[in-house]
Amino acid sequence: MFGNPIYSEKISNEIAGINLPAHPENLYQPISYILGLAGKRIRPQLVLLGAELFGHQDLDQVLPAAVAVEYFHNFSLIHDDIMDKAPLRRGKKTVHQEWNDNIAILSGDALLVKSYEQIAKCPTQYVSELLKTFNKVALEVCEGQQYDMDFEERADVDQEEYINMIRLKTSVLLGGALELGAIIANASAINREKLYNFGVDLGIAFQLQDDILDAFGDPLTFGKQVGGDIIVNKKTILHILLRNSLDAEDLLTFNQILNLTENEADRKVAEMKNLYAKYEILLKASALKEKYTSSAYTLLAEIAVEEDSKASLYTLADTLMNRVR
Amino acid sequence: MFGNPIYSEKISNEIAGINLPAHPENLYQPISYILGLAGKRIRPQLVLLGAELFGHQDLDQVLPAAVAVEYFHNFSLIHDDIMDKAPLRRGKKTVHQEWNDNIAILSGDALLVKSYEQIAKCPTQYVSELLKTFNKVALEVCEGQQYDMDFEERADVDQEEYINMIRLKTSVLLGGALELGAIIANASAINREKLYNFGVDLGIAFQLQDDILDAFGDPLTFGKQVGGDIIVNKKTILHILLRNSLDAEDLLTFNQILNLTENEADRKVAEMKNLYAKYEILLKASALKEKYTSSAYTLLAEIAVEEDSKASLYTLADTLMNRVR
Repeated sequence: MFGNPIYSEKISNEIAGINLPAHPENLYQPISYILGLAGKRIRPQLVLLGAELFGHQDLDQVLPAAVAVEYFHNFSLIHDDIMDKAPLRRGKKTVHQEWNDNIAILSGDALLVKSYEQIAKCPTQYVSELLKTFNKVALEVCEGQQYDMDFEERADVDQEEYINMIRLKTSVLLGGALELGAIIANASAINREKLYNFGVDLGIAFQLQDDILDAFGDPLTFGKQVGGDIIVNKKTILHILLRNSLDAEDLLTFNQILNLTENEADRKVAEMKNLYAKYEILLKASALKEKYTSSAYTLLAEIAVEEDSKASLYTLADTLMNRVR
Repeated sequence: MFGNPIYSEKISNEIAGINLPAHPENLYQPISYILGLAGKRIRPQLVLLGAELFGHQDLDQVLPAAVAVEYFHNFSLIHDDIMDKAPLRRGKKTVHQEWNDNIAILSGDALLVKSYEQIAKCPTQYVSELLKTFNKVALEVCEGQQYDMDFEERADVDQEEYINMIRLKTSVLLGGALELGAIIANASAINREKLYNFGVDLGIAFQLQDDILDAFGDPLTFGKQVGGDIIVNKKTILHILLRNSLDAEDLLTFNQILNLTENEADRKVAEMKNLYAKYEILLKASALKEKYTSSAYTLLAEIAVEEDSKASLYTLADTLMNRVR
């Protein structure tokens, strides 16, 4: 359960209640399967919260847009998992593992189309505007995934490129989800834009935090192995900030560390963290995260509605960024 | 050049003039590439013809929907070619061959989204209705492709299933293209439905004719090797009609023919055509084709507009079905 429990239940019921055709089985069963591996469903919550912020009360008018965003997110998971050759998703086999690549390609396509079916179910007067926003975000998510794949082949990715990649790949969908809600609540263009940018900046901050916690999280409370990203040479913000700070001698050390195998995982993590310490990478990454977090809070503060209406979004931001206020 | 040369030029110019972003290259170059391998572009023509039928003159209002349909068709080609492991498309390397599977998946996704961008550019008052029609057709095309893949694994596909598969995989997009034009021309619901069904039935008839010509076409005028489908055991309407007519003895022969290798291509084609002759398969398939052709012409005749307005669609149907009237 994440966010507003009433919203959460509405979203779950709506998605659980959707009747997919029985045939062709190989097209629709993978869709049921991935939707059944429900995550936190933060994105559809954001659609409802975006509408709530501007005083929109009629949940049923907003739900189709919320479902559209959840469908889109799951479409992107199915296709990304093929591209990344990922075996598991939320602890279960990925679609391409449970079925095969062809079925995963095609059921992903169908789920993308089904997200547009939901957009078509929104209040008619907003469909054209919702569609434009949804298309823009959807295309940007594709761009972000392509940059992410391209960056795997490159050693010279810089901070700006990396932030742009995570903005496109993950953050615009958060901002876009909020904006869809704002459109249905008939918010002004300037308020819509601020809310969208709030979501984008919060998303970037959250992703940077994710990178930071992977190396510097508390082993007792961090759900995964600390240093997991270091072990697989993932190009996180820490990796990129370090790579672009190293002197010639440490660059040699850095490359040696990258070549350590998973059998030497503990040593690899320890040595990389030594370099992080020497170059104050935690400080630099945290400052960057703080820049985006603070920008997000400023944008939320600037939105021209009663402060009371913003309570849910402040709570959401606090929860995501582990802030105590 | 196919159909109305003015329309053809408009469509070509519109697609050639679209400015794709330069980056990420691996996302947008495959899209330029596939759009550059221009086929006959019959589908966007159908959108314009659908609008023309109901007296709509302003081409620029209809062009985005035409481009949407062409984009969608090319998206489906990129993804189908991955699934079919096809090396060539229109005489050039397929996208997944020229780049790789991941790039083909993602650039296909982006092109699908771009087809919806075009829908969003249509006259605002029709966007909601256009979107519903487009979604329905898009989902059916996915269903058709899944049935086509499923049928490759089955020996017991019957005529009804086969016709339903080709209806979904190829024909609904033709009917849907016409219907999009009709929507923008503000045609009545009944006229829209008849026009859609005209396109669907014509599409089925055309696909059946394609199957027939592959085995019975004139070697002098048929562009490909006569019997190509027989050589690769493709489950055409001829194959299915024969398979479901055979007595026990001929079923053995049939299965032996299927097992002949491509080294025995001439013998394979000749022996299969002997069975086709014995079971009057050409007659049966032609009757089926004629049923759909005749239904298509009847539907066109029934559409409640001036007969003169139908001239282009009659010509189109005559051309596709090689009819002399």
